[in-house]
Order: sequence, then structure tokens, then C-alpha cells
Amino acid sequence: MPGNRIAKPTERRAGLYLRELQMLQRQGVETIPSSTLGAILGFSDAQVRRDMAELGMAGKPGRGYQVAAMVETLQTRFGIDRTWMVSIIGVGNLGRALAGHQGFWRQGFRCVAAFDRDPSVIGSKISGVRIHGIDQLEEILKKTGTELAILAVPAGEATSIADRIAKTQVSGILNFSPVTLHPTRGGLEIVQVDVSLEMQRLAFAVVNASPNR
Amino acid sequence: MPGNRIAKPTERRAGLYLRELQMLQRQGVETIPSSTLGAILGFSDAQVRRDMAELGMAGKPGRGYQVAAMVETLQTRFGIDRTWMVSIIGVGNLGRALAGHQGFWRQGFRCVAAFDRDPSVIGSKISGVRIHGIDQLEEILKKTGTELAILAVPAGEATSIADRIAKTQVSGILNFSPVTLHPTRGGLEIVQVDVSLEMQRLAFAVVNASPNR
Repeated sequence: MPGNRIAKPTERRAGLYLRELQMLQRQGVETIPSSTLGAILGFSDAQVRRDMAELGMAGKPGRGYQVAAMVETLQTRFGIDRTWMVSIIGVGNLGRALAGHQGFWRQGFRCVAAFDRDPSVIGSKISGVRIHGIDQLEEILKKTGTELAILAVPAGEATSIADRIAKTQVSGILNFSPVTLHPTRGGLEIVQVDVSLEMQRLAFAVVNASPNR
Repeated sequence: MPGNRIAKPTERRAGLYLRELQMLQRQGVETIPSSTLGAILGFSDAQVRRDMAELGMAGKPGRGYQVAAMVETLQTRFGIDRTWMVSIIGVGNLGRALAGHQGFWRQGFRCVAAFDRDPSVIGSKISGVRIHGIDQLEEILKKTGTELAILAVPAGEATSIADRIAKTQVSGILNFSPVTLHPTRGGLEIVQVDVSLEMQRLAFAVVNASPNR
């Protein structure tokens, strides 16, 4: 039921379901049993059925779930049935990689501005988007109608820039900076992406899988 | 207790605890109550205490947890009390960003080789590491003693390369390619990082926080 708050772990799995279902849809698959969807993603059948119920989707006994209907429901829930205006803050290696990452800008996310502190890049463009000085942050975020910000700045600058963003109309930050921002800092929704942490998770998974390694 | 398997959501939070505790340790903090640690990271007090119990750490009533002891326990559990040999497969924008990302190579991860299909980059170096042709994958992974691989190749190549990696001594893959690999495909541990998915999660969090937006 739209409007209900979804638990964070379900939210994370919902993204995986959506991507997988979109791929199945492109391949012409019309229905899928929960057990098959679970097997692809590494979740139990019971987990998939619990998640689908929580996300407001019902399967048909013996046939499974309608792929197209699930994609539509998930896209609406994810807010990607519309276009979000996004700015990138910090265009070092990672910011540049993200700006140029085609997969990143599919499906309802449009990059409208970029920001950096380095005078040698201010005024130039990355992937067709102008790089502004960080001193113009508030002004350009407003002018471009930015709704989501990608933060890819050094650790020392992340919190102060997040606090500046919190005072604008921006609703959320995708934080690639190696500093933990509280998930609702300053009223913003914050999703933390820490590549070094993901690396640690992988090492942990390997050690966890074979403790005597 | 070392050897017990830790649930995936706990594993994810454990990485956040470790990073936060390392920062506190550098700031000279010796003990921290679970409620304070929870407040920093956005978890409830009860959640932190459950996680610490699962990770085998006990707090002292009224004092909280010993920061140094927690860091040591978590580092051991995460397998980052030693150095992991890592290779990067695919040196497009993202692969390059990761190779040059200082925060990524702290704490026990050493980049030993890179691979690409593009003849114009094979033989050159990124961040001091040689780029090999993808046809030499198995040979160089073995020669360098690679234990973990970072996969940053286009969607169409990810599964076939993952299957080649599965036949080597490599234990795990950090997958940046926009294709879901089963978390234990071919006996490998796989951690999926999908930046476009993280962007969707952020949009979802914003929509989820204010359904009438």
C-alpha cells in the first residue's frame, strides 16, 4: 500500500528486485515464481514472499508474480516513474566516474550541475554538465532545481557541505565521502556509499564463510 | 565467538561500527556507551547492543564499550588484521577511480594487478599498477596471488569473467558491474555494489519519508 513506510533492509532488497525484474521484462519473461526470483538473487522463497507482501504485491498460486505489474509498482514506490534533478559535488576521479557512468543516469535521474573547489576545472564541463565553484553551491542548486545531491568530496569537507545542502530545497544525499552522515542529518535523507567499506564487507564475507582460512 | 557465521545485515552494520570506532580511536575516545554509538550511526541502542553481542563484544554497565578492544575484535573478524591481494578488472572511469581512491587502499588491501580489454591501455600503469590484457587473467591472478577481485566491466562481460575468476584461487569479488551475481556464484563470495541502485535507494528513501511529496 503506497504511503506505508518500508523497513530499510526491505528497501535495499526492493532495489535488487526492481533491477532483476526489469532485466527479466526485457528478456520477455511475463511471470516468475517467488522461488525462481529468490534463487537468482540469493534470497529464500519465504523472504521473497514476505518482501512482496510488504511492498504490496500479491502472487498467483502456481503461476507466480506478474513481472510487468511488479516493475510498475516498484518504480512508483522508488519514485523513478518521474525524473529527479541531481547535482554532483566534487569532481575528482570518483565524481568524474559517476558523471560519465551511463548506467547511473538511466531511469529518471538527470545530472543538472557539478561543483568543485579546484579553479582549474571550474567553468569546464563533464559529460555535458557545467562545473561550478563550490561558493556558488546554494545559488546553483536552487537555479537548477536540484532535488538529490551526490557528495564525492574529501572526508574533511563532507559534513560542512552536507549542512549547506540541508539548508536548500534538496531532499537527499548519496554520500560517497568516507564520513558517516546520520541517515536523516538536517532533515535530509542520506544513503551512504563507502567503497572501502564494501571492500571490508567482502573480506568479512570471505573470512565469515571459512573461519579457519 | 570467532567462527560463528554472522547474519548479512549485522555484517553490513559491523563495517559501519568499525569505521566509526576507528575515527573515535584516532580522536582519543577510550570508551563509548551503546546509545552514543547508536546515535552517531542512526541505530537504536537496543540494535547496537544486539549487534555487539552477536559480534562477541560485551560492554561494561554504566561505562559502555572499550573502543580499542572493539576495533581489534572487528578488524580480526573482518580479516583486515592482514593484507589482502586485490586485482582490478576493467579500468574504465570507475576502475580508474577505484585504483586511485586512497581511502580504498587503506587497511590491508593491496592492489597488485589491473586488467582491461582495450589494447591502448594494456602495458601502461594506473596508480603504479600494471594493466594486463584480459586474456592473461588466470595467469596473472595466480602469479600475483590475488585473493579478491574488483569487477568493473560492462554488464555483458561480468558473468563470463566472474566464471573465469571462480576457477582460480580468488575467494571473492567486489562487483561494480550492473549485473547481479549470485552471492556465492561458483563458490566465490560476492559483494554487489551498484551505484545506480544506490541512487534508486535514495529516491526511494525520499519518497518513503514523505509519501505525498
